[in-house]
Amino acid sequence: MDAERTEIGTLGEFGLIAELTKGLEKKQDSTQLGVGDDAAVLSPAAGHRTLVSTDLLCEDIHFDLTYAPLKHLGYKAVVVNLSDICAMNGTPRQIVVGLGLSNRFSVEAVKELYDGMRLACTRYGVDLVGGDTTSSRSGLTLAVTAIGDAPEDRIVLRGGAQDGHLLVVSGELGSAYMGLQILEREKLVFKEAPGAQPDLTGHEELLERQLKPEARKDVVDELAKLEIVPSAMIDISDGLASEALHIAAQSGCGVKIYEDKIPMSEKMYETAREFNLDPTLCALSGGEDYELLFTVPQDRFEDIRNHPMFSIIGHMTADAAERTLVTRNGMEAELKAQGWDGLQSDA
Amino acid sequence: MDAERTEIGTLGEFGLIAELTKGLEKKQDSTQLGVGDDAAVLSPAAGHRTLVSTDLLCEDIHFDLTYAPLKHLGYKAVVVNLSDICAMNGTPRQIVVGLGLSNRFSVEAVKELYDGMRLACTRYGVDLVGGDTTSSRSGLTLAVTAIGDAPEDRIVLRGGAQDGHLLVVSGELGSAYMGLQILEREKLVFKEAPGAQPDLTGHEELLERQLKPEARKDVVDELAKLEIVPSAMIDISDGLASEALHIAAQSGCGVKIYEDKIPMSEKMYETAREFNLDPTLCALSGGEDYELLFTVPQDRFEDIRNHPMFSIIGHMTADAAERTLVTRNGMEAELKAQGWDGLQSDA
Repeated sequence: MDAERTEIGTLGEFGLIAELTKGLEKKQDSTQLGVGDDAAVLSPAAGHRTLVSTDLLCEDIHFDLTYAPLKHLGYKAVVVNLSDICAMNGTPRQIVVGLGLSNRFSVEAVKELYDGMRLACTRYGVDLVGGDTTSSRSGLTLAVTAIGDAPEDRIVLRGGAQDGHLLVVSGELGSAYMGLQILEREKLVFKEAPGAQPDLTGHEELLERQLKPEARKDVVDELAKLEIVPSAMIDISDGLASEALHIAAQSGCGVKIYEDKIPMSEKMYETAREFNLDPTLCALSGGEDYELLFTVPQDRFEDIRNHPMFSIIGHMTADAAERTLVTRNGMEAELKAQGWDGLQSDA
Repeated sequence: MDAERTEIGTLGEFGLIAELTKGLEKKQDSTQLGVGDDAAVLSPAAGHRTLVSTDLLCEDIHFDLTYAPLKHLGYKAVVVNLSDICAMNGTPRQIVVGLGLSNRFSVEAVKELYDGMRLACTRYGVDLVGGDTTSSRSGLTLAVTAIGDAPEDRIVLRGGAQDGHLLVVSGELGSAYMGLQILEREKLVFKEAPGAQPDLTGHEELLERQLKPEARKDVVDELAKLEIVPSAMIDISDGLASEALHIAAQSGCGVKIYEDKIPMSEKMYETAREFNLDPTLCALSGGEDYELLFTVPQDRFEDIRNHPMFSIIGHMTADAAERTLVTRNGMEAELKAQGWDGLQSDA
């Protein structure tokens, strides 16, 4: 695996940057100047608004290098930021990347990380236009800022939902969380018997959702094709419940979700059962799905109901205090955000 | 000092963000939507290009909390990014901030850090439009991305200098480095005799240059007033020598600097002597001055020569291999970049 190991110190900061950014090709017309000067130069399309979002990923908080391959980590770090631009109904165009590295990382390791970032850039047609690479006293830190745009009349905030609007989600929920459970289990097994091979077969779908998620740019494109501008939208990073409550709070509405409408994959459902976990709870609070959750007026019902990308899971209500989960047996429970909170988990 | 201590966990991530971003007022017309959604929404001025730059600051690499007050640190983290926008001859407009915090930081401590960031935003008329606040396993990490703009015909890259162009620098050099030397010395004294009061009197000028530097937006404004568009420009973060060599390399020129023309403050000169350091070397390689280094054609000589903001310290030459320092006694030495390199220092 680590046959070759070049210390970062042998290249120096400028040498490392030159090595990492070698052969970067520009994919966006709006990228006028990328890496190599004091700042990147962008030329946003006339009439479009610029969208900016940033995320900071810290080792042992957001990722565990015991089981997250560096290439996947690079990919994911980019994707979670692009997802925020998609959540505004925008198109991601560029990223800048800050990288903090302890000296336990070799040049080869950093290249792997960068390969993942480049792969995400290629997949989403995004340009890496700048960055800062530096040492850190401990562990790996990844700071990604994504820049995108959208015509002003297509930008979707979290606060535009109204009473009666349908609550819609793309894809399936809970899989990323179950992927994490599998990885944590195998890590424990490995700790107890270091020679043991991890048993990940048959779990590829869930593992991929955790280790290499995708941003739903295809949903943004599909909404444009359907000529739908959602009244509110958010991406699911902390969990369905938490995000639905954000939309409700920022829109001044209540929200009602039907348990039997929440989309889950068969594999995720079975695995949750195997782990003695409630599949609904995993879907509601697992997080890291990076699906898009949005609201549309009822007159768009026909466009959405049988569309393979979407599930209508509930609707907004007039009473701002309402936060209801209607269970499979018709009971009404309080919808609670038990999303993974990076800060509380450290308290 | 730390009379009150509120654990971050008691607020949670969303609570902390709400607390920190309370009462943020928008100063820029181009800020359409700031903190509180998936991404910020900006509307760049028609005909202007967008400039983006990012920096990652890690504890014990870029700052030492033993002597850097959190408020100053917040201020400096913003300023060094704004400096990159100024180095493109642009106007900084917005920032987004990623904050990684270990649980040794209280809510009060983070507020102090944010106060410093806000102060810098107010001083430079910049809006804080987004961020990510998360826990970190160890120490403090600050990732700042600055966004600015400039009319296309005023943007200045590093690569436009030509043979014969004058090399000009704003302000005085080496002071930030000497400020650091003083702080390091007092830290050592304190370590040996923990009761001792640090002796910082009389060194305020140098300490301020280290702990609370400024971005030379006033230079950008002055250049506009003089109707000068430099042929190349860079800000001095790694040191004069390193930055001059960047301009030369990216412009395909050589460079000649005259030692007796390098601007240094009397205080810096005296203090370097007191520390048995060569003042010229401090000015050439100390770094963190955040002054602007730029080139202009010779026909702008009269505009620059007696201007109180600027010093003409040398010129560009035709031979791309030339990197000359003409010493006070008229000898020619090789100009070397011995700038502080974050990565090598860790190797």
